[in-house]
Amino acid sequence: MLHLFFSLTVRQTFELLILGSSSASPTNGRNASAQLLNIAERYFLIDCGEATQIQLRRFKAKFQAIDHIFISHLHGDHFFGLPGLLSSMHLLGRKQKLFIYAPPGLQELMAKLNAVSETKLSFETHWQETSASTSKLLFEDDKVEVLSFPLQHRIHCTGFLFREKKYPRKIDKYKLEKNKVSTADIQLLRKGLDVLNADGELVKNAELTIDPLPPRSFAYCSDTRYNEDVCSYIQGVDLLYHESTFLEDQAARAVKTFHSTAKQASEIARKAGAKQLLLGHFSARYRVLDDFIKEASERFPNCVLASDGKLIKI
Amino acid sequence: MLHLFFSLTVRQTFELLILGSSSASPTNGRNASAQLLNIAERYFLIDCGEATQIQLRRFKAKFQAIDHIFISHLHGDHFFGLPGLLSSMHLLGRKQKLFIYAPPGLQELMAKLNAVSETKLSFETHWQETSASTSKLLFEDDKVEVLSFPLQHRIHCTGFLFREKKYPRKIDKYKLEKNKVSTADIQLLRKGLDVLNADGELVKNAELTIDPLPPRSFAYCSDTRYNEDVCSYIQGVDLLYHESTFLEDQAARAVKTFHSTAKQASEIARKAGAKQLLLGHFSARYRVLDDFIKEASERFPNCVLASDGKLIKI
Repeated sequence: MLHLFFSLTVRQTFELLILGSSSASPTNGRNASAQLLNIAERYFLIDCGEATQIQLRRFKAKFQAIDHIFISHLHGDHFFGLPGLLSSMHLLGRKQKLFIYAPPGLQELMAKLNAVSETKLSFETHWQETSASTSKLLFEDDKVEVLSFPLQHRIHCTGFLFREKKYPRKIDKYKLEKNKVSTADIQLLRKGLDVLNADGELVKNAELTIDPLPPRSFAYCSDTRYNEDVCSYIQGVDLLYHESTFLEDQAARAVKTFHSTAKQASEIARKAGAKQLLLGHFSARYRVLDDFIKEASERFPNCVLASDGKLIKI
Repeated sequence: MLHLFFSLTVRQTFELLILGSSSASPTNGRNASAQLLNIAERYFLIDCGEATQIQLRRFKAKFQAIDHIFISHLHGDHFFGLPGLLSSMHLLGRKQKLFIYAPPGLQELMAKLNAVSETKLSFETHWQETSASTSKLLFEDDKVEVLSFPLQHRIHCTGFLFREKKYPRKIDKYKLEKNKVSTADIQLLRKGLDVLNADGELVKNAELTIDPLPPRSFAYCSDTRYNEDVCSYIQGVDLLYHESTFLEDQAARAVKTFHSTAKQASEIARKAGAKQLLLGHFSARYRVLDDFIKEASERFPNCVLASDGKLIKI
């Protein structure tokens, strides 16, 4: 039977573009960490390793549409591309404000960089510091919210959780007419309220609407050692990006360097009830990555490997 | 007639690898400024725009053989690749000292970068400041010397002159035997001195040696507005790299931004008596570069365009 809905039938965009999938050093084919997340045409850049601006151009991503940049921590492979990106935004005449969420210290460093080159950016930057000890709401509008949460790395480091706000309830237009409910009441119905019809009768919301699709979410966890505490922040996430710098044969090295193995990443995905796991931040020592999938899928079958240029639709 | 020489018959290496040829912003195919010069297996990196380490890998250049880095000025497209390069050298376990020649301010900035990431490099860095007002000898060994000289840009900026030391005189082994001169006197002969032969007779140096090949040189001039003063520092240079950010139709813009046009670069090459001109630092506005060659070759026929990956043997 055909039902006509006023509300969303085509879901808003929720897709992730991998710009870099290497750990510390770039390799041929794998750049330093950076990902571009598009939720409902809000473009969030997550980390910004060296040459991120080159990758953005290479993969034809919307360069100036990025209004929010999230930096997980201040190891070079996660932010050395920021000065160049901001410089190019400036040279291209950007006017709109740029919001940057980062650990303490980066704002001052960027100011120093601009000072030595005697550069005054053509646009304003608004800085917000992440917290290494607690979850923090960084951004919120009518459709999306972004939170940071602590990770366990050698220096101040946070993950980020991006999630859609609850969708409005879906309205069955056919039933609306049948129950003599005015279209003027749509906003009330979307919010889940009951309404009065043309005859002055109360019509229950459940008569006219159905549950909307559940909001989607993406969590970004890089860099971190195995840490189950993180699961409480990312419970039930649709897509979990979790670093897997090493395979399990380098587990001791992972502990020492505050990184994770593919097996550990899959364990976190399982414990967090994630729907899909995205592995990345691979050590340059690995040329072929097949074993990462093998190792992780033993505990968590629905996993994929990050690769530069890969687009994942959630 | 066959002559046998003890001294150099195959000349020592003198070649330049272009790692980036773009100005301010990288484009598809043109990276920010960086060049790798190899003189007699001394590897000199000249400027280090973002992603220089990626270009080094891409063109299979000897990464850790670089012991000397020269930074012309502190605009981002000339040094934003330095933090990442040093970081990768560190991660690859470099031990040998690295010498960096740069304008004042960069050493402090790099120290700050290392501080925020809590990084202690695995190798020592030795810094030497360039001078914006006078020529300065930066490096010298038995085969090569490097000088900086002032350029006219918006901020402190210098060019660099790389030149071979005079070669030793070439010895004619056949005449050595004929004149009963001991091979023990070779070092004296190479220096141009006369010697006594087995019979105690004075043999003139000119009898036994011929002039060596002239030493070669390379000058790097980026970024600068048209400035004839520079010619005195680079007179007779074998290869002159001179920025040509614009074509002559943008001459007013060149003046305003302290850059040069292709025509101006050719004028400097002509006035400096350079043997060959290498054009580069092209504005991102130009997709096709043919007009740069056309414009420059009107006054200076022997010119070539820089392109990423190009190797020029001098």
